[in-house]
Amino acid sequence: MNELASYLSGEWQRGTGKGAELCDPSTEAVLATVSTEGLDLAKALTFAREKGGPALRAMTFAQRGEMVRTLSKAIYEKRDELIGLAIANGGNTRSDAKFDIDGATGTLAYYADLGKELGDTQVLVDGDAIQLGRSARLFGSHVYTPRHGVAVHVNAFNFPAWGLAEKAAVALLAGMPVFCKPATSTGLVAHRIAEIMVESGALPAGAFSFLAGGVGTLTSHLEGQDVLAFTGGSSTGRTLRALEAVVARAVRINVEADSLNAAVFGPEVEIGSDLENLFTADVVRDMQQKTGQKCTAIRRVYVPRGRLAEIADLLAERLRRIKVGVPSRDDVGMGPLSTKTQLRDVREGARKIAEIAKLVHGSIDTVEALGREGDKGFFMSPLLFSHDSPSASDVIHNHEVFGPCATVMPYDGTGEDAARLVAAGGGGLVTSVYSDDAAFQKSCVLGIAPFHGRVTIGTSKVASQALPPGMVLPQLIHGGPGRAGGGEELGGRRGLAFYMQRTALQGDRAVLEAIAGKR
Amino acid sequence: MNELASYLSGEWQRGTGKGAELCDPSTEAVLATVSTEGLDLAKALTFAREKGGPALRAMTFAQRGEMVRTLSKAIYEKRDELIGLAIANGGNTRSDAKFDIDGATGTLAYYADLGKELGDTQVLVDGDAIQLGRSARLFGSHVYTPRHGVAVHVNAFNFPAWGLAEKAAVALLAGMPVFCKPATSTGLVAHRIAEIMVESGALPAGAFSFLAGGVGTLTSHLEGQDVLAFTGGSSTGRTLRALEAVVARAVRINVEADSLNAAVFGPEVEIGSDLENLFTADVVRDMQQKTGQKCTAIRRVYVPRGRLAEIADLLAERLRRIKVGVPSRDDVGMGPLSTKTQLRDVREGARKIAEIAKLVHGSIDTVEALGREGDKGFFMSPLLFSHDSPSASDVIHNHEVFGPCATVMPYDGTGEDAARLVAAGGGGLVTSVYSDDAAFQKSCVLGIAPFHGRVTIGTSKVASQALPPGMVLPQLIHGGPGRAGGGEELGGRRGLAFYMQRTALQGDRAVLEAIAGKR
Repeated sequence: MNELASYLSGEWQRGTGKGAELCDPSTEAVLATVSTEGLDLAKALTFAREKGGPALRAMTFAQRGEMVRTLSKAIYEKRDELIGLAIANGGNTRSDAKFDIDGATGTLAYYADLGKELGDTQVLVDGDAIQLGRSARLFGSHVYTPRHGVAVHVNAFNFPAWGLAEKAAVALLAGMPVFCKPATSTGLVAHRIAEIMVESGALPAGAFSFLAGGVGTLTSHLEGQDVLAFTGGSSTGRTLRALEAVVARAVRINVEADSLNAAVFGPEVEIGSDLENLFTADVVRDMQQKTGQKCTAIRRVYVPRGRLAEIADLLAERLRRIKVGVPSRDDVGMGPLSTKTQLRDVREGARKIAEIAKLVHGSIDTVEALGREGDKGFFMSPLLFSHDSPSASDVIHNHEVFGPCATVMPYDGTGEDAARLVAAGGGGLVTSVYSDDAAFQKSCVLGIAPFHGRVTIGTSKVASQALPPGMVLPQLIHGGPGRAGGGEELGGRRGLAFYMQRTALQGDRAVLEAIAGKR
Repeated sequence: MNELASYLSGEWQRGTGKGAELCDPSTEAVLATVSTEGLDLAKALTFAREKGGPALRAMTFAQRGEMVRTLSKAIYEKRDELIGLAIANGGNTRSDAKFDIDGATGTLAYYADLGKELGDTQVLVDGDAIQLGRSARLFGSHVYTPRHGVAVHVNAFNFPAWGLAEKAAVALLAGMPVFCKPATSTGLVAHRIAEIMVESGALPAGAFSFLAGGVGTLTSHLEGQDVLAFTGGSSTGRTLRALEAVVARAVRINVEADSLNAAVFGPEVEIGSDLENLFTADVVRDMQQKTGQKCTAIRRVYVPRGRLAEIADLLAERLRRIKVGVPSRDDVGMGPLSTKTQLRDVREGARKIAEIAKLVHGSIDTVEALGREGDKGFFMSPLLFSHDSPSASDVIHNHEVFGPCATVMPYDGTGEDAARLVAAGGGGLVTSVYSDDAAFQKSCVLGIAPFHGRVTIGTSKVASQALPPGMVLPQLIHGGPGRAGGGEELGGRRGLAFYMQRTALQGDRAVLEAIAGKR
């Protein structure tokens, strides 16, 4: 049996005991085991802080950028192998696997470019210098310097490649050592990427650590200059936020949790138009891709009252074309959910929605899956619900079903009403608005914005080139308020701020410039 | 007896029961009482969210700026009355009172100017638009819009005017209603300012609420779009950070807590030079001003080894000139501590330091106070300690004595060693470095920066015009990592971000510009 190792204190190490099993969600066959029992996590964190931190801080942004670029290239070279692992351990179709892995290398490459752009310097200047006194000598300026702790990353099961890479890219470029704890269930891809990163030789000792398996006592060792970034369910997010270290030592924390992302179909959009096609493609893709296991996937669809049945039927018709099955097959469009727990949770959530809404497409408990062996595998049918009188207190607005499941609901045709309903989700990562009406766009988007980290606006003129709302871009921030965890990642250089301390400097302008200047 | 009222749901209201007493710390005479018992806080928060929020969001930055300017002017008109209240209820000297009150009106005026500069718009654009696709049509941009909740401000006792005003200025300009809970003990000044603000007529209904007295159930009613900003002790900071609402609803929180601010005397600075005079004036001012009850006050003084006794004697000589006493007297330079609890805590903390360090000036338990009535009043002598072998685990590096108390310690003459010792404070608000040596400046300041929100660099050329490190400026950020709470306030438009949601917009460039454009 393949026993996955952790990379701690500069060495690959295995825990003791039986450990957890990593499965193929199509066959339920055990692919590997992991254990973190007995591993010295306090020592590993200290190693990262004392070896990795100084090594990274001694580098310029340009040098860290080159390091990140080497990682991107090394991972890209193993793309086919990684796709195979994602199909086997993640239940990913080939297309799903590429989305994850190319997202990883693309984000690393983006931050490599940013490092080059920031250049031969170690201090990031924030904004212009400000004259403080009456004379033109006394000034203030703001600089960012890397925090002296370790960046602990706790990642989600759905994007083992991208999740690891997008957080690591930003932290490493900022100058903080990374301590990555991937989700156990889909850990094969993350583990292989960790091996590739270590083998690349690009990383100074202590700059990267990897914990395969349970989190153990990791978070109890956090210190005041460490940061903790988490992606996953909101109950774990709550636990992390209430950690003694976070509460007592003001450890900086970023949480990206549940999100009931929405799509709003504009009042004037015609069936058969480019804009309707964009909308339909986005909704269906978000249900199908990664079997709906995307934190950015559309869960709620708002359409003008009176067009509810028409649009629900349109979506159902498209959903009927999706072939569920073993994802290694070319004729399969949607693989299984990633774990048995996921399957149970999705069915439970869907049943709650079914209590108040009408099931327009799919079946909660049965599914025809191509290539399935008996009743093995965590396969699930796409599920489309419709509900004609949504209320903010409904389960539809308060419970994320993390699978191929969405609900179509009506609004009164105004941007204000659509925004009110979208906001009932309590804070989300992304919502998409489809309309060519300028007044509708403005009222809807500005009504939605305070509740979201990102809003995409689909219009006829960009329909042919629009990027899917579910695609997280390194240039733009990713995160959302409230239920979505209140976090913020990426966004180009904005993302670096989490890993650095902003400090105001006050004094002679020439002195400030010398301090913040090139090394 | 003067029973202070709270301003809730658009009405002045008094709580029931006996309430708490507000005293004159020089005479221990009771000046007023306050109670929040029986007040409907949930209703008041809802009123702020439902009335104040929409009214403020309907205004442009320019209009909000004018509102803030009216508040600044109205407070300035009552400056003499407020100074009188600060002397009576805060133990402030006239100079201390001006520092607080002029800080309040100055910060309001600064944000009024910023509102004017931001102009006739409601959306704050963050950075340049970014081309996303191959064509020059698909873009991303970032905007800030006001959060839809209420900004709850829990302020400290030491700056009843400035603390209220600096938080209110930023929140109101950002477009969020303010719910202010001042410290009870020194609440007379805050209460009078609240009255002045309400009477000014500048504030829409619900835009400002004021809770005089205990916090009651206030924080249990927080919701996902609310924010909570706190200034005060770290134990309260911990309690607030662990609140169910903060943990479960990702309520945004900003904590500004304990800080063991330091001053570093450069290796080359000569006694009698302008730079030594600046250093000495800063250290002595921070012990004397507000009787050392300033979150930014210098608590630790690092001097080159071998010059410890010389510099400690120099500081002690200046401290001997400070006359402690009833602050309404013109010949008094330092008033009492603000409360009996403060006096007890300062003495306890000083005794802990005295266990390991030498008392160079002052007395922990006795003080000669001009104009004192018998043994009344919370008077305290300035206390200067010296310690010749400081260690990071010492009480000096780990316990904030919030009074006229500082400790002089040696470093080895290098910027690295000074930075290491300063960092042992576990994260602070501000540290000041005095040196004309460029290499020393750079190594010391960059070593300190990750642990601080602000660093001031005193040099000969700016010695005559330097602003004291203890003075918080609206242009520069205020806050610090770790022990200092991990928060960040002010910093010009940077401060607005806490009260707004940053959202990435994605779509046709022209559409994005129309959405973010002028109203």
